[in-house]
Amino acid sequence: MILTAGVIAELLGGSVDGDPQVQVSTVSPIEKGFKGSLSFLANPKYKDFVATTEASVVIVKDDFHSEEKVSTTLIRVADPYTSFALLLQKYDEMNRPKPGIHPSAVISDSAQIGKDVSIAAGVIVEDKAIIGDGTRLGANVVVERESIVGTNCTLHSGSRVMHHCILGNNCTLHAGVTIGSDGFGFAPSDTAYSKIPQVGNVVLEDDVEIGSNSTIDRATMGSTVIRKGVKLDNLIQVAHNVEIGEHTVIAAQTGIAGSTKIGKRCMIGGQVGIIGHLTIGDNVKIAAQSGIGNNLADNVVVQGSPAFEVGNYRRSYVSFRRLPEKLKAIEEKLAALTKG
Amino acid sequence: MILTAGVIAELLGGSVDGDPQVQVSTVSPIEKGFKGSLSFLANPKYKDFVATTEASVVIVKDDFHSEEKVSTTLIRVADPYTSFALLLQKYDEMNRPKPGIHPSAVISDSAQIGKDVSIAAGVIVEDKAIIGDGTRLGANVVVERESIVGTNCTLHSGSRVMHHCILGNNCTLHAGVTIGSDGFGFAPSDTAYSKIPQVGNVVLEDDVEIGSNSTIDRATMGSTVIRKGVKLDNLIQVAHNVEIGEHTVIAAQTGIAGSTKIGKRCMIGGQVGIIGHLTIGDNVKIAAQSGIGNNLADNVVVQGSPAFEVGNYRRSYVSFRRLPEKLKAIEEKLAALTKG
Amino acid sequence: MILTAGVIAELLGGSVDGDPQVQVSTVSPIEKGFKGSLSFLANPKYKDFVATTEASVVIVKDDFHSEEKVSTTLIRVADPYTSFALLLQKYDEMNRPKPGIHPSAVISDSAQIGKDVSIAAGVIVEDKAIIGDGTRLGANVVVERESIVGTNCTLHSGSRVMHHCILGNNCTLHAGVTIGSDGFGFAPSDTAYSKIPQVGNVVLEDDVEIGSNSTIDRATMGSTVIRKGVKLDNLIQVAHNVEIGEHTVIAAQTGIAGSTKIGKRCMIGGQVGIIGHLTIGDNVKIAAQSGIGNNLADNVVVQGSPAFEVGNYRRSYVSFRRLPEKLKAIEEKLAALTKG
Repeated sequence: MILTAGVIAELLGGSVDGDPQVQVSTVSPIEKGFKGSLSFLANPKYKDFVATTEASVVIVKDDFHSEEKVSTTLIRVADPYTSFALLLQKYDEMNRPKPGIHPSAVISDSAQIGKDVSIAAGVIVEDKAIIGDGTRLGANVVVERESIVGTNCTLHSGSRVMHHCILGNNCTLHAGVTIGSDGFGFAPSDTAYSKIPQVGNVVLEDDVEIGSNSTIDRATMGSTVIRKGVKLDNLIQVAHNVEIGEHTVIAAQTGIAGSTKIGKRCMIGGQVGIIGHLTIGDNVKIAAQSGIGNNLADNVVVQGSPAFEVGNYRRSYVSFRRLPEKLKAIEEKLAALTKG
Repeated sequence: MILTAGVIAELLGGSVDGDPQVQVSTVSPIEKGFKGSLSFLANPKYKDFVATTEASVVIVKDDFHSEEKVSTTLIRVADPYTSFALLLQKYDEMNRPKPGIHPSAVISDSAQIGKDVSIAAGVIVEDKAIIGDGTRLGANVVVERESIVGTNCTLHSGSRVMHHCILGNNCTLHAGVTIGSDGFGFAPSDTAYSKIPQVGNVVLEDDVEIGSNSTIDRATMGSTVIRKGVKLDNLIQVAHNVEIGEHTVIAAQTGIAGSTKIGKRCMIGGQVGIIGHLTIGDNVKIAAQSGIGNNLADNVVVQGSPAFEVGNYRRSYVSFRRLPEKLKAIEEKLAALTKG
Repeated sequence: MILTAGVIAELLGGSVDGDPQVQVSTVSPIEKGFKGSLSFLANPKYKDFVATTEASVVIVKDDFHSEEKVSTTLIRVADPYTSFALLLQKYDEMNRPKPGIHPSAVISDSAQIGKDVSIAAGVIVEDKAIIGDGTRLGANVVVERESIVGTNCTLHSGSRVMHHCILGNNCTLHAGVTIGSDGFGFAPSDTAYSKIPQVGNVVLEDDVEIGSNSTIDRATMGSTVIRKGVKLDNLIQVAHNVEIGEHTVIAAQTGIAGSTKIGKRCMIGGQVGIIGHLTIGDNVKIAAQSGIGNNLADNVVVQGSPAFEVGNYRRSYVSFRRLPEKLKAIEEKLAALTKG
């Protein structure tokens, strides 16, 4: 993608201050700008970089003024960040593979493939699977039998939708994701464990994004459910029969054990562990590396393993850091009092 | 699979109480039953759901009696849970792919493929690999050169057995598992690290199940060994030269460092870390998120990072939670005594 | 590979003490030696095993002397460990696949493939990707469009290089690695999250090794950078715009959040979490399971979640373990003093 400053200004409804013919082919952060790249100034802290950046074009606010001489071409708009994000969106869309099915893909005769679908090399779509309109399947993606993938989804290279699972519209699976591995269910006997067949599935509602190499287990019976708008980072484990509420976001390497229900609009840090059969309320915030062993009410903010209210946790931790000297001081005073 | 209540009762040696012609095609939890599904009542707590569930058929104990009117069809058996599990098992078996090799699979001429093996699209079996009778390889599975996979194993889509590794019989690898990645071994010099070649392998004994995207590293020399009946959940890391004893179960995201030996019938929680070169006894229980830095004797139960005896850990943690107020109270008393 | 003791001695410039015609085809640890294998004695603690091992050949120091009768064949060299490592290296090289492109691989016409490249079955190389001389791509590897893989790299089965990423020379990706998944970036609104397109890439410098199923996210803009000689273990998460300095080593299941910069020659334990936008100095050591929430200066050693200086952490933790009894003793003394 090569664009001139003039074309960008036209796309964004802005005005050019400099050379409208200057070309950019990529983007850069303003503090690391380089020739041929487009950058933007949204945070006033970075204002001075406009005079020094080597980015060929910088999007600024319409009333931007520099004390120092600016040699790069500026595009003035009402909201530089929003305008830049809009351009990124367009750039991203232009980067997408074109519709079409690579001849090396193996598509079952009983599968249904929608319109304008893009299927890369090495993709496997098994019997009776359904792929919605406008969906993109990257190299070596697997969609197993009787699964349903909605419209306008992106399944990146090597992601896998196991049998009978369902994805809504506008979902994204990053590389190596597994949707629908068996839940971890075994019935103990005196001498061994026997497998409890996991005959449920996984349902992702619309607008869900799942990070690379994360694993979402199918329900023992019924469905593991990831509600609308949920965003999961990389290497996250979601066990069987879990339900995650709308617009909850979870950072990398967190694990959620079986049958736990998480509310809406929660923010859960990285490397958090949540045990099974709990109910976590709406708008809950959980600090990174916390361990959750009890139900949590709406709106609480917790930290620790096991976790409790974040302010109390931090006070306890401050005491923990000073514990040897505190105890020593107390014991010295006690000794003095006892002697006295 | 469509079955009538009459057929199910015959399979289970039970009796029908209701319409023997009613059909079910799937299963459901009794509290979320729906038309066309089969459910069961094992836990007396759920008794009242029998009258209200929309499941078409419910398996109950032979002496089940409801005060309220039951409109669903019942099947009476001696042990509802066991009967249901048996049906699930059959359902699961009927869901399995049929024997056969998909034409897109790439099987080396020097590989040996047993009887009744099912090989899905995109599978790669390299030189001199051996696949046992009745084993099923899902889409895009890779079995590298000179590896051996036993009889009646299931390797789910995208799982990988690297060169020279050995799987026993009845093993299950879930999607994206790696068996036999290199151990993390580097010899430091003043300026860099040089790789220590990892020339051992991984051996899984019979009845081992490994969860999605878990990684089991090959030994530097000799074998990393997972003994009979071990069950590992998703995203678990097992380093080079580790040995895990029979019938030990480990929850998701736990990591075990190099050359550690874990005993039989241990239960290890999620996100546990165990350092290298340790010996963990038999029947050990380790709470989730614990960190193990020392050998553990048989039968101990531990928690914490670093972990110690679970009862002591919990007492210490209760004190930790109250630490600021405890210390404040003590210091106030001390101040009062000193003044006095 | 079958070698005689005589040939090995010649390769290593050592002398044979025993039968120069005895053959070995693999290696073994001396304490678990078996017929047909080669072992070595580097650690004097294992000296007595030379008399009892069943290894057919053992490499020993040139002045090795045993009180007990030795029946195995010895090869005497100046430095047994270095000699053995050299042999392993050769063994490893001989184990490598031969150059050539498997007919099932899908290589774009616009891709550039170097000399002596080995491409296994099921590999996908997309448009305008570049594969350097001597590089080996395992089964089902994906190299997406416009990515560059340097010379003499090894990409193991099922690893993935997403579009526009760059690998230096002599890099190793283990099975299931993802290089260049999208960073976890979403702009919150009142009701949902909208995706911030991630238009940067990942750059690995020379001699980088990444463990199985680890995930390295592409930068929002610019590059996520892994510098020369960095070694990452399995299941590690590296977020967008992170930079990891030369020759830093990181153990399994550690996660590094966005835009954090890590120095040179650091040693980071397993299951560590590091939050975003931090600067970690050079030669820093971080104990396993630690949580890093602040910048760290050069040369510090830390532990805990949140982490502080390792000696202080351990003293605090000793106090934590004894906390209930300590507090009880203090309160009893206080009660006695108050009554008195």
